[in-house]
Amino acid sequence: MSKRIALMGAGIIASGVGRTLMSNGYELNCYNRTKANASDLIDAGAQYFDTPAAAAADAEFVLSAVWNKEALDHVMLGPDGLYANAVEGQMFIDMSTQLPATAVSAAAEFAKKGAFFLDAPIHGSKAEANSGGLWIMAGGERTAYDKSLELLSVLGETVHYMGGSGKGYASKLCGNHLVSTVVAAVCESIVLASKAGIDPEEIVKVWMESDFRSPVVGGVGGSVINRDFDVSFHLRTMVKDTELIRNFSESLNVPVFLSNIVHEVNKVGENMGFGDENASAVVKVFEHMAGTEVKKIKG
Amino acid sequence: MSKRIALMGAGIIASGVGRTLMSNGYELNCYNRTKANASDLIDAGAQYFDTPAAAAADAEFVLSAVWNKEALDHVMLGPDGLYANAVEGQMFIDMSTQLPATAVSAAAEFAKKGAFFLDAPIHGSKAEANSGGLWIMAGGERTAYDKSLELLSVLGETVHYMGGSGKGYASKLCGNHLVSTVVAAVCESIVLASKAGIDPEEIVKVWMESDFRSPVVGGVGGSVINRDFDVSFHLRTMVKDTELIRNFSESLNVPVFLSNIVHEVNKVGENMGFGDENASAVVKVFEHMAGTEVKKIKG
Amino acid sequence: MSKRIALMGAGIIASGVGRTLMSNGYELNCYNRTKANASDLIDAGAQYFDTPAAAAADAEFVLSAVWNKEALDHVMLGPDGLYANAVEGQMFIDMSTQLPATAVSAAAEFAKKGAFFLDAPIHGSKAEANSGGLWIMAGGERTAYDKSLELLSVLGETVHYMGGSGKGYASKLCGNHLVSTVVAAVCESIVLASKAGIDPEEIVKVWMESDFRSPVVGGVGGSVINRDFDVSFHLRTMVKDTELIRNFSESLNVPVFLSNIVHEVNKVGENMGFGDENASAVVKVFEHMAGTEVKKIKG
Amino acid sequence: MSKRIALMGAGIIASGVGRTLMSNGYELNCYNRTKANASDLIDAGAQYFDTPAAAAADAEFVLSAVWNKEALDHVMLGPDGLYANAVEGQMFIDMSTQLPATAVSAAAEFAKKGAFFLDAPIHGSKAEANSGGLWIMAGGERTAYDKSLELLSVLGETVHYMGGSGKGYASKLCGNHLVSTVVAAVCESIVLASKAGIDPEEIVKVWMESDFRSPVVGGVGGSVINRDFDVSFHLRTMVKDTELIRNFSESLNVPVFLSNIVHEVNKVGENMGFGDENASAVVKVFEHMAGTEVKKIKG
Repeated sequence: MSKRIALMGAGIIASGVGRTLMSNGYELNCYNRTKANASDLIDAGAQYFDTPAAAAADAEFVLSAVWNKEALDHVMLGPDGLYANAVEGQMFIDMSTQLPATAVSAAAEFAKKGAFFLDAPIHGSKAEANSGGLWIMAGGERTAYDKSLELLSVLGETVHYMGGSGKGYASKLCGNHLVSTVVAAVCESIVLASKAGIDPEEIVKVWMESDFRSPVVGGVGGSVINRDFDVSFHLRTMVKDTELIRNFSESLNVPVFLSNIVHEVNKVGENMGFGDENASAVVKVFEHMAGTEVKKIKG
Repeated sequence: MSKRIALMGAGIIASGVGRTLMSNGYELNCYNRTKANASDLIDAGAQYFDTPAAAAADAEFVLSAVWNKEALDHVMLGPDGLYANAVEGQMFIDMSTQLPATAVSAAAEFAKKGAFFLDAPIHGSKAEANSGGLWIMAGGERTAYDKSLELLSVLGETVHYMGGSGKGYASKLCGNHLVSTVVAAVCESIVLASKAGIDPEEIVKVWMESDFRSPVVGGVGGSVINRDFDVSFHLRTMVKDTELIRNFSESLNVPVFLSNIVHEVNKVGENMGFGDENASAVVKVFEHMAGTEVKKIKG
Repeated sequence: MSKRIALMGAGIIASGVGRTLMSNGYELNCYNRTKANASDLIDAGAQYFDTPAAAAADAEFVLSAVWNKEALDHVMLGPDGLYANAVEGQMFIDMSTQLPATAVSAAAEFAKKGAFFLDAPIHGSKAEANSGGLWIMAGGERTAYDKSLELLSVLGETVHYMGGSGKGYASKLCGNHLVSTVVAAVCESIVLASKAGIDPEEIVKVWMESDFRSPVVGGVGGSVINRDFDVSFHLRTMVKDTELIRNFSESLNVPVFLSNIVHEVNKVGENMGFGDENASAVVKVFEHMAGTEVKKIKG
Repeated sequence: MSKRIALMGAGIIASGVGRTLMSNGYELNCYNRTKANASDLIDAGAQYFDTPAAAAADAEFVLSAVWNKEALDHVMLGPDGLYANAVEGQMFIDMSTQLPATAVSAAAEFAKKGAFFLDAPIHGSKAEANSGGLWIMAGGERTAYDKSLELLSVLGETVHYMGGSGKGYASKLCGNHLVSTVVAAVCESIVLASKAGIDPEEIVKVWMESDFRSPVVGGVGGSVINRDFDVSFHLRTMVKDTELIRNFSESLNVPVFLSNIVHEVNKVGENMGFGDENASAVVKVFEHMAGTEVKKIKG
C-alpha cells in the first residue's frame, strides 16, 4: 500500500484521524472547505491542496470525515470533486455519519470509474480519533473491505464488516440511537434524583458499580455533576444524527418512540441555545422542564 | 451483633440474601406469606415461623425483600405484624422497591417503639443476591445506617448511604429509571438494525467495545439475539417499578418523557402476554410494532 | 322533591351550580372549607353552615363539587362529615372529578346508612355551570339516578346515565383525556404555523370552517391569538385531571401515549409558573420549546 | 376566464374536483398516470390526454391533485411535463399536500416561463370534493391568487389566502397535524372508555354535545363504534402526511412531541396491515396495545 493517504475534512474526527496516520508513518494530503481549519494538520506535516481532486490525485486511499451530507456533496460533486476525478482501483472511504442510501449511490458513482467506496463510520470521539482507538463499522463490497482493512486497523481499535453498501452507516445510526437515548436517560434520571434531594455524585457512583455502568454513563454523569459542558461531541451534532436516525427509521417504517423523544428534547436544547455545548448539556432542558437544577450536596 | 437474622420474603432476592447470610455464618429465621415458596431456604437451614412477629421476635436485625407495597403491608400491619411487635433497638431493613413516602411512614411507625427502619433497596438480581454482590443504597438515620453497615456489607459488594428516610428507595427508582430505559433503547435499536439487514450479533459486539458497553447492554443484547427470555428480572416487575417511578416523579412534578414511553411499551408487553418472561422480552413489542423479527444472519 | 338542596364547595362549578339552583326556585344550604369563598353564594341567598353535616341535615339531595380527593375527603370523613351523618334515603351526588374507585367506596359507605351516592361529574365550565348548561355523566344505581334526574336536569343541558358506580367519573376522565389532548394539539400546531410565518388568526379561521371545528378549538385558538389567558379552566386543574387519567388508565393497564405527553407538557407549564393561568397557557411551553412566540400578522 | 380547465390526477380529491368543475359548466382536459383510474372522469365527459403537456396545452388554468411528491414530479418534470411546456400567463394550481419548499421551487420553475404557481391544498375529503365544499388554503403571489379566486370558489366553500409560496402547503400540514392528533386522541380515549366498561356510543354522544363536539370527533367515533373502516381518508395517506409534518417541523426546528407519537402509532397501523383502511382504523393499534376491543354495550 502506498503510504500517501488523502483526507477530506478537518473537524474533530478528521484531525484525529490525520494525526494518527502521520504518527504511523503515513504521508497526508489534505483538503478542507475552509483551509484555516486545517492549520493543525498542516502544521503537523500534511500537505494541503486547493481542491478535493488535487488532494486525491496520487492517493490509493481517500478518506473523508465531514460534518453532514452537504459537506460530503461538496467534496464529491462538481468538476473538482472526487466523483469526476476518481481513477480505476482507487478506494474511497467515508467515515462520517450519513444515511445508508448515500452509500449506495456513492458506491454506484465510483463504480462507474472502476473505483470503490466504503461507508466506514465510527464510534468514539476526540480521544479515540487521536489515538487510533476508534470502533469502525464498514459497509461495501467485501473485497474492497479486505483491501482497506490494514489501513482501517491503524485508525480503529476494532474494525467490523457489517455488510454491503450502507450497512456501515446504518450500524452507526443504530449505535447513535442507543447512545443518544442513554445520554438523555442519564440526564432525565439525574434531574429526578436531584429534585428528590439525592446527591448526584453518590448516585452516579452507584451506577458506575452496577450492571448499567458504562463509559458513557460515567462521562455524562461527571459532566452534569461538574457543570462541565466542554465539547467532546456537540449537542448540535447529536441533533443532526438523531434526525438521520429518524429519516433512516422512516425509510424502513420502523417506529422509534424513544428516539423521537430524545431528538425533540435535543432540539429544545438547540432552541434554548446549547447547540454548541457538549451533548450532555441537554440536561439543562430536563432541568428547565422540571423546574430545578442539579447540585452536588457533598464537598 | 447477634448472628440470628430474621428475613421476610422468599422471592429471587430474598432467597439469595438468605443463602448468602447462612453461608456467612448467620442463623436465619424466615417468614413468607406462602410457606411453600420458602422451602429452598428451609432446606438450607433456615427456621420457618408462622407469623412475621414470631420470626422477628429474637432478632436484632429484621430484613425484608418482598414484591410490592401490598406484600410489605402484609408483614408490617396487623396484630402479628412487625409494627405492632417491634421492640426497642430492633433494626428493620427493607430491601424491596417502594415509594420514598413508604420509608418515611415506616420509620415513623418503628420510632414509636424505639426501633429503627432503613430503606435499603438494591441493584443487581439473582446472581448478585446469591453471591453477596448486590449494590445497596440505604436511606434513614445515619446512626441506624452505621449500626447496620457490617450486616449490609455481607450482602452488598458496595453499600451507599444516600440520606434520610426514603432516599434509598428514591435512589433505587432513579437507577431503575435508567436501566429500564437502556433495556428499551437496546431493544428499539436492535429491531431497527435487524429490519435494516444488519446482523444483530455483530452490532451488539460493536456496542460492547464502544463507550456504551455495559453489562446490561450485553445481557439484553444476548437475550434478544438468542431468543432466550429466561427470567433474571420479570417484565412484570419492570412494569411495577416503572409505575413507581411515574408516581415518584409525579410527586415531585418532574416530567419523565422517556420513562413514560418505556413504561407504556412495557405495559403493551404485559398485554401481549409477556409479563412472566424476562424484561428483555419487551423486544417483542418493538418487533410487533415494526412488523419484523430480529434474526441472526451468521451461523 | 324538597326544594332545599345542600351544596358542598364554592369554586367555579359549585358557585354556578348553586346560583342556577337558586334561580330555579331551590333553597340552598351551603358549606365550604373556607367560608370567605362562599360569600357570593351567601349574598345570593344561600344559608351557610359550619359543618358538612349541618348543611346536609335537612336536605334530601346533597350535592358536592370540590377541587380534588382531599377536598372530597374533607366533607365526607370525620364526625361532622357526610358519611357519619347520612340518613336513610338521602341522595349524595358528587360532581367533581375523581377516580372511579372513589365512587365505588363512597357508594358503599352511604349504603351502610341506607343512603345513595351518584358520581355525576360534568363537562362544561363557568358559563355552563352558571346557566344550567352543563353536560352531566352519572354513575350509580339506576334507581338512584332516576330519582335524581329531575334535579340534574336543572343543572345540565343533557344528563347521561353511564352505568354503575364510578362510570360517571370514568366517563369524565375519558372526556378530559380527549379535550386536554385537543388543547395541546391546537397549541403545538399553532406554534408550528406561527414559526412557519402563517397568520395564526387566519389558520384558526380555516379550522373553524373545516371538519375539525369545535368550540374548544375556537376557544383555545382565540385565547392564544389574543394572549388572553384569563381562566375559565386552570392549567393546574388540567394537570390534576390528567394525573387522574394516568392513574385510571394505569389501573386498567391501558397505555395512553398521547395523554402522557400532554400531562408532562402541562406539568412543564406548571413548573414554568403558568399553573394559575388558563389551560391554554400551555402554548407558552410549546413556544419556549420551539424558540418562538405566536404573533398575529394582520391588524 | 376560459371555461376549459386541465386537471392532473384521478384520485378521490381530483375526481371530485373534476366532477364539480364539469357540473359547473367547465370543460375538462384530464391526465392521469394510470389512464384506467380516470375512467369515471372520462365517462362524465372529460377529455383524456396522453401527457401532462398535451392536457395542459390550451388551458389557462391547470389544476393538480396527486398522491405525493413523486406523483407531482411525474407531471411536472421531463419533456412532456408541465415545467417544460408552460406558457406565459398560465396558472398552475396544485391542491395536493406537499412540503412548503416544493411550492417555492415550483413557483420559481414556472416563473422562468412567465407562468404562475399556487399551492392550494385543501381540507375536506370525498364528500366536500364532490360538492364544491372544500376548504382551500392558498399560497403564492397575491395577484396570481386574485386571478384564481373565481375558479377556486367553485371548488371551495371558503378560500383563504395564507401568504407567499408554500404558505398554502404549510397551512395544510398544520391542519393535518391537528386533525391527525384528534383522530388518534378519540381512538385512545374510546379504547380507555371501553376497557373501563363504558358504552362507546353513549360517551361519543356526550362528546358531541360538549365543547369538544366536532365533525371529526363524531365521524371517527361512529366509525369505531360501528367497526366501519370504509375509506374516506386512507390510514396510509395519514402516515404520508404526518411524515411531511415531521419533515416540515424539522426544517423549522419545532419539536412536535404529540405529532410524533401520532405518526408512529399510525405507522404501527400500517405494519399491522391497516394502511388501506380508513384512518380511524388506527383504533385497532390502540386496542391491540391495550389488550381489548371496543364493543357496544347497548342495542
